[in-house]
Amino acid sequence: MTTMLDIANRLGISKSTVSKALNGAPDISETLRKTVFETAVEMGYTRLKRYRDSGKRLCIFIENMDCTDPSHFGYDIVMGFRQMAEPAGYTVDIVYITEELQKETEYEVYMLENDYLGAFFLGMSLSDPWHEELKASRTPAVLYDNYISTPYTTYIGVDTAESMNLILSYLKEQGHRRVGYLSTALGSYVVQERYRAFYSALHRYGLHAESSVAADGYFILDCIQKHLPHILNQKITALVCSHDQLANAAMIQCKEMGYRIPEDLSIVGFDDLPIAAYTSPPLTTIRQDRLQLGKCGYYALDSLLNDIPMSTLLLHSQLMVRQSTGPARKQ
Amino acid sequence: MTTMLDIANRLGISKSTVSKALNGAPDISETLRKTVFETAVEMGYTRLKRYRDSGKRLCIFIENMDCTDPSHFGYDIVMGFRQMAEPAGYTVDIVYITEELQKETEYEVYMLENDYLGAFFLGMSLSDPWHEELKASRTPAVLYDNYISTPYTTYIGVDTAESMNLILSYLKEQGHRRVGYLSTALGSYVVQERYRAFYSALHRYGLHAESSVAADGYFILDCIQKHLPHILNQKITALVCSHDQLANAAMIQCKEMGYRIPEDLSIVGFDDLPIAAYTSPPLTTIRQDRLQLGKCGYYALDSLLNDIPMSTLLLHSQLMVRQSTGPARKQ
Repeated sequence: MTTMLDIANRLGISKSTVSKALNGAPDISETLRKTVFETAVEMGYTRLKRYRDSGKRLCIFIENMDCTDPSHFGYDIVMGFRQMAEPAGYTVDIVYITEELQKETEYEVYMLENDYLGAFFLGMSLSDPWHEELKASRTPAVLYDNYISTPYTTYIGVDTAESMNLILSYLKEQGHRRVGYLSTALGSYVVQERYRAFYSALHRYGLHAESSVAADGYFILDCIQKHLPHILNQKITALVCSHDQLANAAMIQCKEMGYRIPEDLSIVGFDDLPIAAYTSPPLTTIRQDRLQLGKCGYYALDSLLNDIPMSTLLLHSQLMVRQSTGPARKQ
Repeated sequence: MTTMLDIANRLGISKSTVSKALNGAPDISETLRKTVFETAVEMGYTRLKRYRDSGKRLCIFIENMDCTDPSHFGYDIVMGFRQMAEPAGYTVDIVYITEELQKETEYEVYMLENDYLGAFFLGMSLSDPWHEELKASRTPAVLYDNYISTPYTTYIGVDTAESMNLILSYLKEQGHRRVGYLSTALGSYVVQERYRAFYSALHRYGLHAESSVAADGYFILDCIQKHLPHILNQKITALVCSHDQLANAAMIQCKEMGYRIPEDLSIVGFDDLPIAAYTSPPLTTIRQDRLQLGKCGYYALDSLLNDIPMSTLLLHSQLMVRQSTGPARKQ
C-alpha cells in the first residue's frame, strides 16, 4: 500500500511536505500541491478517498482499447483524467463495455443505476448502440475522438487539421510534391476527419491532389496487399498513414518490395504509439499527448456539469520527425 | 458600494448565507457558493479583492468591440471571464487596445511590464501587429474567434460548422432549395470560417451550391447596394448573413425592393445581438451565449497556464427561430 513516504521518495521531497500538500497547507505552492496530488493518484494512494464525496461519481467507458498497463494507448488518458477528477472530489470508475452490454442495457438506465453524474468515452465506434442513444441523452458525456451535436456532449482530441498541415508543410519543405494517403476503414469519426483533413492540407499547400492518391480498407492486410501497390503506382514520394500500426505495416511491405525508407519513399504515421520510436526505421508521426488528453477530458466534463455546453476541445498537435522521412527522391 | 446584504437581497437569501458562501463554509453547496461568487463579481463587491493574490494578474484586451454596458456585445463575455477568474484568485484588468498602441509597444514587453501571466483577446483582426507577434510568443493567450497554430494560444468561439448545419437543415425542412449567403469582408478568421462552413453545409444537405449565391463586401452599404441585388437574381428563397447587423440591413433593403419577409424571402443572421429580437420582423439567428464564452475563455487560459496546450474550445450553438424565416415560396 502506498504511503506518504513513498510519494515523498518518488518526488524527492520530505514526508511533511507531502502531508502539508495533501492537507492544503497555505505555505505549499499551487504547482507543488498539484504535483503531489497527481503523484498520489498515479501511485494509488488510497487515503485520497477521504477527499472524495461518495455522491460524486464519474465513469470512464472503454471499448476497443487497452489501458491497464503503461504501454497501452489508453493508460495515460485514464491517468490524466483521474489526476484531475479525484483531487476535485470525484470517484472515478473504469468500465469496459461491449456491444452486447450496450444492447442489453440502455445507456441512461445504466448511468442512473450506478449514480454516475457524467461519462468519458474512449474508443467508441459510430455503429455502437449507445452512440445513437447519446444523441437523445441529457447526461453530460465527453467523447474522445467522436463528435455528437447535442448540448450535453463534448468532442475531445488532437487538432486534426493542424496535424495534417504540420505533416504536409514538412513534406513540402522536404521537396515532396506527390503524397499518398492510406487509411483504415472510415467507420469512426476521427478516421473520417483525418481523411478530409489530408485533402484540405494538400490543397492548402498546393500539392498534387487527385483522388487516386488515397485509399482505405477494412483490414490492415487489405490496405497493404490491395491498396498500397495501387497508391505506389501513382508515383508518390511520400505516404501518410491514418495510424502508426498501418504505417509500420506499410513500411515492412514497402521494404519487401525493394523500396528504401526514406530514400525512395518517406512514410508518416499518426498517434505516436509507444512502438513508433522503435520501428525500423523509427517512424515520423503526430504525437497525441495522452496524459493531456485525459486532463482535457476532465476539463470538458467539468464544464458540461457546470452547464457550459462545450462542443469541441482540441489539443495542439506536434510532429515527431524521425528517420522514416527525408528529402524527396529525384524523379 | 456593494455590501453582503445587497448580494443577499439580489439572490433572495440571508446575509449570513452570503457570508458563509464567501468564506467557504462547508455547509454551503458548491452550486450556491458559485452563484454567490458570480453575483459578487457582477455587482462589483470590492471585498472579493482579499481572495486575490496580487501576483496573479490576467488581462482582457479589447478592440473593435464595446463592453462597458450590458447592451454591448462584449459585456457578458468579460463578465463570464471575471466570474471564473476572480474567485480563483486572479486580478483581471480590461485594456482597450488600438493599432497605434500595438505598433508602439511589443506584445511581450507589454505583458512583462504589467506582470500579466496571460491574456484574453476580444475583437482582434488578422492585420493587427500583435497578431503576428503572438505567433512567436510563449505567453499563454486565448483568442475569441481567432486561431493561431502555436502551443501557447487557444481559439474559442461557437461551433461554426454546427451553426451552419443547424441553419441549413432548418431551411431545408422549410422547403428551401436555393439559399444565398451575404458576408462582410473576409478580413477576420471567423468570417472566413463562416463562409467555408456555409458551403460545407450546402453540400452536406444536398442544396444548390453555385459560387454565385455568395458574396462579400467591405462596407455594409456595399454588401446591400452592390451584392444583394446580384444574389437575389439567383432565384434564392432564403438568405443567410454573416452577422445580425448585415441581416437587419438586408431585411430593410429587401422590404424596400418589395419583398415580403418571410413570405417571399427568409433571412437568417448570426450572433443573436440584443437587437435581433426587436428587428422587423424579429430575426432568426444563431445564438452566441456570451456569458458561457467568457467562462470558456477562462477555462482555456487556465489550461494553458497549466501547460495543457489547448488548441480549440468551441461551444455548441443554438438556432433561435423567429419571424424572419418561414416556408419557402412556391416557385
